[in-house]
Amino acid sequence: MSTTSADLPAFAGRHIGPRDEDIATMLSVVGRTSLDDLLDAAVPDGIRALDALDIEPAASEAAVVAELREVAARNRRVTSMIGLGYYGTHTPAVIARNVLENPAWYTAYTPYQPEISQGRLEALLNFQTVVSDLTGLPIAGASLLDEATAAAEAMTLMRRSSKAPAQAVLLVDTEVFPQTLGVVRTRAVPLQIPVVVADLAGVTSAEGLRDAAGGAEVFGVLVQYPAMEGVLHDLSALTAAAHEVGALVTASADLLALTLATPPGEWGADVAVGTSQRFGVAMGFGGPHAGYMSVRPGLERTMPGRLVGVSVDAVGAPAYRLALQTREQHIRREKATSNICTAQVLLAVMASMYAVYHGPAGLRAIALGVHAHAEALRGALRDGGVDVLEGPIFDTLRVKVPGRAREVVDAALAAGVNLWLHDADTVQLSVDETTGLVDLHRVAKAFGVVSPDQVDIAPPQWDESLVRTSDYLTHPVFSTHHSETSMLRYLRRLSDRDFALDRGMIPLGSCTMKLNATTEMVAVTWPEFAEVHPFAPHEQTRGIRGLVDQLSGWLCDITGYDAVSLQPNAGSQGELAGLLAIAAYHRSRGDDERTVCLIPASAHGTNAASAVMAGLKVVVVKTDPITGNVDMDDLKAKVEAHRETLAAIMVTYPSTHGVFEDTITDLCAMVHDAGGQVYVDGANLNALVGVARPGKFGADVSHLNLHKTFCIPHGGGGPGVGPVGVRAHLAPHLPNHPLDELAGPTDGVGPVSAAPYGSASILPISWAYVRLMGGAGLRRATEVAVLNANYVAARLREHYPVLYSGTDGLVAHECILDLRGITKDTGVSVDDVAKRLIDYGFHAPTMSFPVAGTLMVEPTESEDLAELDRFCDTMIQIRREIDEVGSGAVAAADSVLRGAPHTAEAIAGDWDHGYDRRTAAFPEGVDPTSKYWPPVRRIDGAYGDRHLVCSCPPPEAFEE
Amino acid sequence: MSTTSADLPAFAGRHIGPRDEDIATMLSVVGRTSLDDLLDAAVPDGIRALDALDIEPAASEAAVVAELREVAARNRRVTSMIGLGYYGTHTPAVIARNVLENPAWYTAYTPYQPEISQGRLEALLNFQTVVSDLTGLPIAGASLLDEATAAAEAMTLMRRSSKAPAQAVLLVDTEVFPQTLGVVRTRAVPLQIPVVVADLAGVTSAEGLRDAAGGAEVFGVLVQYPAMEGVLHDLSALTAAAHEVGALVTASADLLALTLATPPGEWGADVAVGTSQRFGVAMGFGGPHAGYMSVRPGLERTMPGRLVGVSVDAVGAPAYRLALQTREQHIRREKATSNICTAQVLLAVMASMYAVYHGPAGLRAIALGVHAHAEALRGALRDGGVDVLEGPIFDTLRVKVPGRAREVVDAALAAGVNLWLHDADTVQLSVDETTGLVDLHRVAKAFGVVSPDQVDIAPPQWDESLVRTSDYLTHPVFSTHHSETSMLRYLRRLSDRDFALDRGMIPLGSCTMKLNATTEMVAVTWPEFAEVHPFAPHEQTRGIRGLVDQLSGWLCDITGYDAVSLQPNAGSQGELAGLLAIAAYHRSRGDDERTVCLIPASAHGTNAASAVMAGLKVVVVKTDPITGNVDMDDLKAKVEAHRETLAAIMVTYPSTHGVFEDTITDLCAMVHDAGGQVYVDGANLNALVGVARPGKFGADVSHLNLHKTFCIPHGGGGPGVGPVGVRAHLAPHLPNHPLDELAGPTDGVGPVSAAPYGSASILPISWAYVRLMGGAGLRRATEVAVLNANYVAARLREHYPVLYSGTDGLVAHECILDLRGITKDTGVSVDDVAKRLIDYGFHAPTMSFPVAGTLMVEPTESEDLAELDRFCDTMIQIRREIDEVGSGAVAAADSVLRGAPHTAEAIAGDWDHGYDRRTAAFPEGVDPTSKYWPPVRRIDGAYGDRHLVCSCPPPEAFEE
Repeated sequence: MSTTSADLPAFAGRHIGPRDEDIATMLSVVGRTSLDDLLDAAVPDGIRALDALDIEPAASEAAVVAELREVAARNRRVTSMIGLGYYGTHTPAVIARNVLENPAWYTAYTPYQPEISQGRLEALLNFQTVVSDLTGLPIAGASLLDEATAAAEAMTLMRRSSKAPAQAVLLVDTEVFPQTLGVVRTRAVPLQIPVVVADLAGVTSAEGLRDAAGGAEVFGVLVQYPAMEGVLHDLSALTAAAHEVGALVTASADLLALTLATPPGEWGADVAVGTSQRFGVAMGFGGPHAGYMSVRPGLERTMPGRLVGVSVDAVGAPAYRLALQTREQHIRREKATSNICTAQVLLAVMASMYAVYHGPAGLRAIALGVHAHAEALRGALRDGGVDVLEGPIFDTLRVKVPGRAREVVDAALAAGVNLWLHDADTVQLSVDETTGLVDLHRVAKAFGVVSPDQVDIAPPQWDESLVRTSDYLTHPVFSTHHSETSMLRYLRRLSDRDFALDRGMIPLGSCTMKLNATTEMVAVTWPEFAEVHPFAPHEQTRGIRGLVDQLSGWLCDITGYDAVSLQPNAGSQGELAGLLAIAAYHRSRGDDERTVCLIPASAHGTNAASAVMAGLKVVVVKTDPITGNVDMDDLKAKVEAHRETLAAIMVTYPSTHGVFEDTITDLCAMVHDAGGQVYVDGANLNALVGVARPGKFGADVSHLNLHKTFCIPHGGGGPGVGPVGVRAHLAPHLPNHPLDELAGPTDGVGPVSAAPYGSASILPISWAYVRLMGGAGLRRATEVAVLNANYVAARLREHYPVLYSGTDGLVAHECILDLRGITKDTGVSVDDVAKRLIDYGFHAPTMSFPVAGTLMVEPTESEDLAELDRFCDTMIQIRREIDEVGSGAVAAADSVLRGAPHTAEAIAGDWDHGYDRRTAAFPEGVDPTSKYWPPVRRIDGAYGDRHLVCSCPPPEAFEE
Repeated sequence: MSTTSADLPAFAGRHIGPRDEDIATMLSVVGRTSLDDLLDAAVPDGIRALDALDIEPAASEAAVVAELREVAARNRRVTSMIGLGYYGTHTPAVIARNVLENPAWYTAYTPYQPEISQGRLEALLNFQTVVSDLTGLPIAGASLLDEATAAAEAMTLMRRSSKAPAQAVLLVDTEVFPQTLGVVRTRAVPLQIPVVVADLAGVTSAEGLRDAAGGAEVFGVLVQYPAMEGVLHDLSALTAAAHEVGALVTASADLLALTLATPPGEWGADVAVGTSQRFGVAMGFGGPHAGYMSVRPGLERTMPGRLVGVSVDAVGAPAYRLALQTREQHIRREKATSNICTAQVLLAVMASMYAVYHGPAGLRAIALGVHAHAEALRGALRDGGVDVLEGPIFDTLRVKVPGRAREVVDAALAAGVNLWLHDADTVQLSVDETTGLVDLHRVAKAFGVVSPDQVDIAPPQWDESLVRTSDYLTHPVFSTHHSETSMLRYLRRLSDRDFALDRGMIPLGSCTMKLNATTEMVAVTWPEFAEVHPFAPHEQTRGIRGLVDQLSGWLCDITGYDAVSLQPNAGSQGELAGLLAIAAYHRSRGDDERTVCLIPASAHGTNAASAVMAGLKVVVVKTDPITGNVDMDDLKAKVEAHRETLAAIMVTYPSTHGVFEDTITDLCAMVHDAGGQVYVDGANLNALVGVARPGKFGADVSHLNLHKTFCIPHGGGGPGVGPVGVRAHLAPHLPNHPLDELAGPTDGVGPVSAAPYGSASILPISWAYVRLMGGAGLRRATEVAVLNANYVAARLREHYPVLYSGTDGLVAHECILDLRGITKDTGVSVDDVAKRLIDYGFHAPTMSFPVAGTLMVEPTESEDLAELDRFCDTMIQIRREIDEVGSGAVAAADSVLRGAPHTAEAIAGDWDHGYDRRTAAFPEGVDPTSKYWPPVRRIDGAYGDRHLVCSCPPPEAFEE
């Protein structure tokens, strides 16, 4: 069934690393005669797909770009004044080109190896500083998925931080964005959290609060700030009342408004959430953008998502790292309080750089301009006798035009402007950074009033309680890089500190760090995709919707499912959506008692966290200590024990150990037989595409990771896209959206992301990948991914035990190197090896997952033989370095391994190691003219957790 | 007259480095009260402009992009099959994004400091290897400006290499491209080289050759290969005949065709020239593209332009550098044989990377595809009874359609394809890499014949003498990076070896290395600008032509001239065009004897070279040894001495010494009085814009450098754009173009570049700069450029003598630091200081120009105070290092200065210097986390010239 490369589209030869002659060489090392022979041996017969993928490849990369231009042309560019959390913004060109379009930023991985991630960690610390400064709450995380999911996370954070009784309610103001309310409700249902929506604008007392809650106890309050309708309310009395009854308060706040308005932290809010979209990140039909959360002191250890902190390295120099990681959800498994395990790093970097570029005065000037345009328009409407909502506003007008709302919206559209049809009598609109006088003219005309002839920039005429008086962004980084030259160099300097795919291999098991081809990326920044509001009328978005449909169809073919939802904007959200579909399916059949979710011990921690969030009870199934496979006897026992209450089993295939378990079909049958559903985590789909279809070999639902198998770049830790595929019986229970009836089934489980299609603007990347490869190319990619992993396993097996393999001694698309014996014998740890790899110019493999003390290597199909050999040669050489410790010739504590990574500064300084500088920095295989230098030495994680610093430290901290 | 920054467009604050408060600080250091005060003192009254620039700024960067999109929309995208040296090509996306759109490549300077230019030097060596391999001639230069100027350079090379008598002719085949013939003629006229055009296809003997030349002696032969009409002739007999009569032969050859056809070097040609445009560089309405030249052994030392060679560094490691620089024209002054002093580095890099990406097999496959499409179309035409030229062809068809040519061309255009109307009876067309079956269908239909229904890829059915049998691109670099991952990493690795503006200041005097803003760059890669053929019908190019007109108008306002030609595609060509206009003006008045051109001793060598090329006799005017100014007494004497024969004076203003000479108006008057014309070299226009207009203070003509003052990036050593501005009386003598009557005056001097508007596709950069800044912003840029230079002079004066300044002790926009005394006292040379600056993370200032033993510093307005201070602090610290030598504490030979630059490898290795490693690599002021490491130590230039290696050395050469 294997094709020769001559029959494959030309792009397959660009995406896949090894050449035909290399493949022959590697097959002989692995001991197989052909790729077919390899796959026949590695993949169990029972799951093999019987028919090829029915996906035609494009003729060329140029042809795909031409097709994408046609798709783009079917989107209609209309100036958006819809607002509702999505605003026009100017991405500074220097940021667009040097971050969003720069592989040094977009191909980076999550900064789990902080020594080689100092650039993006600094950018994220800037982001945290922006959020904490603007919200007035001192601890901010390094971004969340979007505003709506951040609000839902705030709900559960408030729930666990409040002492209110279990039946207490979340009180949500009526003027919270509908998509935010939608996601909050979706997430509240399985957790059995009651949500009450009430008008909180006038609530100023504990009594009023209880009345608003219909007499119920309240654990949390969620308000929009400014409110959806545009008005800025003084919420200090409401907040005091909430605190009085033991409730916490979350403000979903607009960061740009906070440059002018009293920040939530100053009027007492406990939590602020929101989006940083309008800080230079295009609307992109809904995403991706960086959501944010900040909290008052005392809540930092219960905050979801990632947190960057400042620590020190081995020689005491300040260094950034992810802080409080044990708090993170993928580690806490079924004890998790959230399933968030990613962020929107690339977008958070952009937003932070927007703040660096504009600085506090620049941001304030932008906000004043926005405000002045809104007020000018309000004045014109008022003067024209139109009934426009009064009160202190920032950027949004709500206008009553009884019976005429549709007419006004249509008239504005005819003039090229989208307004928001709130209801038949009400139009709403928001001004943004891009709004000019010409736009006000168009809108005034649509309302039939005289246009404002000028816009006077002036401070807001608000009640003084609403006017911000505190400083923000006082750290020098926000006042230093205002010339483009300085900004450009700052971006270069930061990116140079990091190691991304544009430098070398990132062989992270389970993370699938493969090529993000330029042609796949080009359309992302086209205005036809970037400048679309997610709630724009359907007829304006035919292009992107058509692309979504086509991509969904291809993903169905690839996975064997009947329906796919592209709404989840991270793998974790895809998991949740899939489990919610299972739960809803059981409920729809009256099987309300089916709430047990079986999860193998080896599963990624997020699986368990998602199950808990979906209201399921996690029951762990053992895995075989020798093979790593699901213990079928234990499974059988657990299935029997929970036969009546079994909701689902959640397994990863190939397993998290990188093995094609040959019991998968039995497993599916056993669970189905007991009335349960089978959830196959698609994290390892890169080993299956074109070879096997989960939807056909027994699974009912899977989420995929488009940022793994389908080439969306990791962006340094996000964006991710986590679509969920289901068989037909689950399709009615997929996510949907309150503002877009085309985005899911009528009776779906509600939205899991703020936008109808999640991170829609990056879907052209995966679309282009599939279109470029075609069915045959995709299958070849899988074959070579499996070959590359087996080649590495074959070359390294005699130097490091390969922990698990299938019946033929073959692994799937990744392999686990077991260092536990080595560590026991020599004291050299996986950490030592990982850091030593930095000296050689490699990102470490995945450390201690799924088994502590091991390294999991996933080369992907994109790495060529030369790079695979460079990696294997390096690992073998490191083994020799370890052996010097093992033989007693070198003490572990004074070994080159323990000293790693070595900075240039260390090399140039005093030297008191038992090994020489050249051995440290330029061991064999390192090209001295292309050396990657880490900017810091090994970082002391514990120190950073003990001394938590999560916003930009003063420059003096970096002085020696 | 100075505006405050609040009145300036926002972009001015992005382009200009210092903030308002910095400007105040710097003025106090300089001892001036305001920018006005500074300019009043620095700029002579007599030249000050009386009125402000009448250029409205755009509202914002976004507004400029929107305007550019409107301009772009006025170009019509039509598939081009015009050919004639310009072909559709696919730029591999990974190259477009990571070279053309990457500031690490495009903001680099010419690699005169080879230690910090190893990346682009390697890329250029690859380019040379591509050219020499494909043409079969062993020595290739690192690119020329375009095919036509390369042919003109070949003419003069052949002239000086041939022993034929002075009256011997250049014989040009009738089937040479018309623009090539045009430029050859333009260049031949002032040199009094007779050019005879004849049909050489059938010439096989010395006798035939002399007959073709009308009986004249022949020094050189120029043929197109394949010929313009498309046919590949066996030219070996012609070449043998030429050699027999003592003539040389140049083939203007298509590189893609050479993958299939016997290369010129194998049939005896002495020289090959051409363009590398179709190697992945868009047509761009004519340019920029990299022209090429390669020569047989023995001609390398007379070859024009740059040549990259391999040498060794201080520790014997192989290292690249520009070879045989003393051969270069800007050094040889009036003895020069060419005025070429730049290249098309960025485009040569792209073309070389296209070859790296495709490799020999890939290039051959592309060529076979092109050929097969051409043959398929020819077959269809033949079958349809159409009279199509027979014979061996590569990609081009000449079709006879008596009386119907216009009709056919119009029909094809209606179907979306441009063909070439050769004459009323003849249509010509060329197939390229982008041509598909659908295009053949359209063309066939236009001719009224049945379309070919398939294209069979097959080797050409040519006579075996025409079929290439030799290998090419056998160096491993052309077979290693065929996956995109590997290509991306190769590009990153090379760019990381180089120092460009994205890392830090490049304070090169006379080179004006200022910000190349991203917004200025964005339109360059839009298909509406990139994919336009230079000879496309006017109605398809309204957008770019309108932009050219508007930019010309602005440049007239800025310079005070009446007309501007944007055709010259380098400053040198602008000089030539300006001098040709002067010569033609004198001739038009019957003043044929006016041939003397006065040039100050301090002038850039290119001035003299250009004058010689324009047929003028150079007479050198002394400059004052103290002030650096033109010696007015000597000038007076020279004017008197040559009063009857005086054609022109050519001066740079402000002077090459960076001084506003207050004698400029007297100088102009004196020359005019004697009947001469005044040529002001616009190299230093960055000190004049908005302050003084050469066309108003006495000059008749200037060329400008858009890649200096007007923000076109230097690209690592090209592209440049060198428009020429003239007063009205010279306007009729500007360049024009044989194929575009709109491109210049009817009786102009002929074309100086291959394309009507030269490097048209990068003109949007300068257009955007002017539009973004507006008149007030441009003036402010000038003021700050002068301030920055004076600030550096003020800070460094007590540490290094500042060589020249004006009457108030002020410099213009650059300053010269005199190290001659220091060198004499200590032995520390400018070279030592320049290389030591690398250790500190700086590009050196201009070395030993205009005065040997000095450094000329031009900070430009884009550098901010922090970077200026970092530079000054560094220079002061280097002075301390020099003083340690001066005091005898350290021997010069063992000083950190002489050891510079220090590589990381050196730091990690054995150490036997008197200074320590930290002093070498991390002296005070160097941020250890942002250190730039040169990949090699100081390069031995002389070694490389003695052992000339100009194509890729085998990998073993790099083994230690």
